[in-house]
Amino acid sequence: MVDQTSLGLCSLVKQDGTLELSLAEVSVSPPKDDEVIVRVEATPINPSDLGLLLAGGDVRLANASGRGSQTVVTAPIAPAAMRALAARIGKPMLVGLEGAGVVTNAGASPEAQALLGKTVSILAGSMYGQLRKVRAADCLILPAGIRSEEAASAFVNPLTALGMLETARREGHKGLVHTAAASNLGQMLNRLCQADGVPLVNIVRSEEQVQTLKGLGAEHIVNSAQASFRDDLVSALKATGATLAFDAIGGGKLAGQILSAMEAVAAGASPEVYNMYGSSVHKQVYIYGRLDPGPIELTRDFGMTWGIGGWLLFQFLAKVGPEVEARLKARVASEIRTTFVSHYTRTISLAEALDPNVIAAYSRRATGEKFLINPSLAIE
Amino acid sequence: MVDQTSLGLCSLVKQDGTLELSLAEVSVSPPKDDEVIVRVEATPINPSDLGLLLAGGDVRLANASGRGSQTVVTAPIAPAAMRALAARIGKPMLVGLEGAGVVTNAGASPEAQALLGKTVSILAGSMYGQLRKVRAADCLILPAGIRSEEAASAFVNPLTALGMLETARREGHKGLVHTAAASNLGQMLNRLCQADGVPLVNIVRSEEQVQTLKGLGAEHIVNSAQASFRDDLVSALKATGATLAFDAIGGGKLAGQILSAMEAVAAGASPEVYNMYGSSVHKQVYIYGRLDPGPIELTRDFGMTWGIGGWLLFQFLAKVGPEVEARLKARVASEIRTTFVSHYTRTISLAEALDPNVIAAYSRRATGEKFLINPSLAIE
Repeated sequence: MVDQTSLGLCSLVKQDGTLELSLAEVSVSPPKDDEVIVRVEATPINPSDLGLLLAGGDVRLANASGRGSQTVVTAPIAPAAMRALAARIGKPMLVGLEGAGVVTNAGASPEAQALLGKTVSILAGSMYGQLRKVRAADCLILPAGIRSEEAASAFVNPLTALGMLETARREGHKGLVHTAAASNLGQMLNRLCQADGVPLVNIVRSEEQVQTLKGLGAEHIVNSAQASFRDDLVSALKATGATLAFDAIGGGKLAGQILSAMEAVAAGASPEVYNMYGSSVHKQVYIYGRLDPGPIELTRDFGMTWGIGGWLLFQFLAKVGPEVEARLKARVASEIRTTFVSHYTRTISLAEALDPNVIAAYSRRATGEKFLINPSLAIE
Repeated sequence: MVDQTSLGLCSLVKQDGTLELSLAEVSVSPPKDDEVIVRVEATPINPSDLGLLLAGGDVRLANASGRGSQTVVTAPIAPAAMRALAARIGKPMLVGLEGAGVVTNAGASPEAQALLGKTVSILAGSMYGQLRKVRAADCLILPAGIRSEEAASAFVNPLTALGMLETARREGHKGLVHTAAASNLGQMLNRLCQADGVPLVNIVRSEEQVQTLKGLGAEHIVNSAQASFRDDLVSALKATGATLAFDAIGGGKLAGQILSAMEAVAAGASPEVYNMYGSSVHKQVYIYGRLDPGPIELTRDFGMTWGIGGWLLFQFLAKVGPEVEARLKARVASEIRTTFVSHYTRTISLAEALDPNVIAAYSRRATGEKFLINPSLAIE
């Protein structure tokens, strides 16, 4: 068997502060015994993919030249953003965390051979391409009849939602708070918390998002755009006992406001006791996103028993170990059409992913909008 | 045996927003079998005592009336500060976390009787008074010949310094950062880290403080008032491998600057690797003080693997359990004249503690200054 050629979406940061997006020809050598080659048919654009793909470039100023597989898009990167990108300057990077497709070639091992012709999900990086070679053991096999489009988002959002619940259990919290809660992930988290009977406080920013979550049967929804936000939040926290929040926004005052409201509930439980250090109830906010990249501002009115930190799926998985990871993935596979279903705004080809108008659309990160790339669609 | 009377320093927050300080007559009933009565001879004014004592009152506007044991001091409390004080309005509170003195009465149990005439240290609250009844088991017995003044600060600072090292070991850090590092506690931490061979980065705010710590043999001292602060901090973090900081200041940008410098060191260790989530090295800041009560501002340039939280001695002790607490206390007792020695700016009587000029002095919280109350000194 000879090498195959695959076109893959490639992101390059150049020394002069230019982002360059193109389709790179990648040579795919035959699989080793324990490997398979997957023809990728569906791979989502997650917020975390946008970071690697766009590198903070100003896509409103994007320029495209060439046609079809020869298209090259350039956009300027602000000088301030270049510092954090030093390690990737001059290195073409293939993009795409996860996706699904059909196994077209398999190595000699029985495990690899067993996958031939099957639809599998992969979390491997470099997924925005026509072919992806991976270890057979890294393929998640989905129930018969599942299409690639249904299997495309089997890892990032499902494992993040499951990881949030697992973290809550491990750290002894009996309820959760989630911000930007009408997102694709937030909707999944609502289904999951309902299935598992875990109280969830949803914080959103508009009445439209309130309605979206009501439609899903969410019980506790708080709109931060309302003047009554703090009172509403305190009431919801009291009703749920939630002392752990996962925050997708990061910048601004929201994380501190959540801690403050949690402390008000904890202190209110024994109003006759004065403790100048605040309650002894541990209040935790994990920041897992960056919708607001500005500074975090914490007004300290929540006592001394609190924590804020970053939360990253890959580090969570490393911490809990392979057995827990396998258990969580098995649950995703069995509930991929129900709890962990994803909906997409639009499916695009690799060529469309380089169209400045389409880039403008998928880089908006509008709540609930999600794009899917199908690399097997024809490139003119 | 009949009840005894003890004068104790009392702090009262009134509904109208007035702080009132006075000497209250407290009746001390005879000790039960397992109790002793201590004649308090030395009790320090810790930053944490000032919170309970002054309740955020504006002591520059303090007024004293009456004389001797009848003195009453009043000072206004800002309306904004009153909200956090709701639970203590109208409740007279005795002040003073820790102190030392001589056991003058003992209950019938052999453990209590064995303490008669001994100098002991106590962490019991209500220490700014002439007599304090406690359980015999709660007395820390110091080596023979130790005077009360030497034994006064055997808990808060020594256990905090030991708790910082214990936390670092438990959470897998190999070096420490400390801010406001020329404080009484900071000096103790330097002696302790030198004794235990733990690398320590001292952050101070003036050249005078740099010299204080140099005099103690501190190796890594960084002055945040210098333009080269960040570079100096990165160098010190690189030299020590410190990934855990204890911050006495809290407000402002310092906690975030420390995380950012730690991340620069972690990322610099493998400059060829680009990870948009930053390094996988966990970077932690614990805030244990409130020298700057303003908001904490975190500019997020330190990746996703980080944490900030409150750190409180009492919760640390509850977490590690009685065996560890006993081990730490035994070390304090045996090194009270060396590692854990405290120095005092001035020793005052209970009456002087109510003198507006003296209040102005001890409420300044000047680095390295520390006042000691001797409640056995005569009150005119």
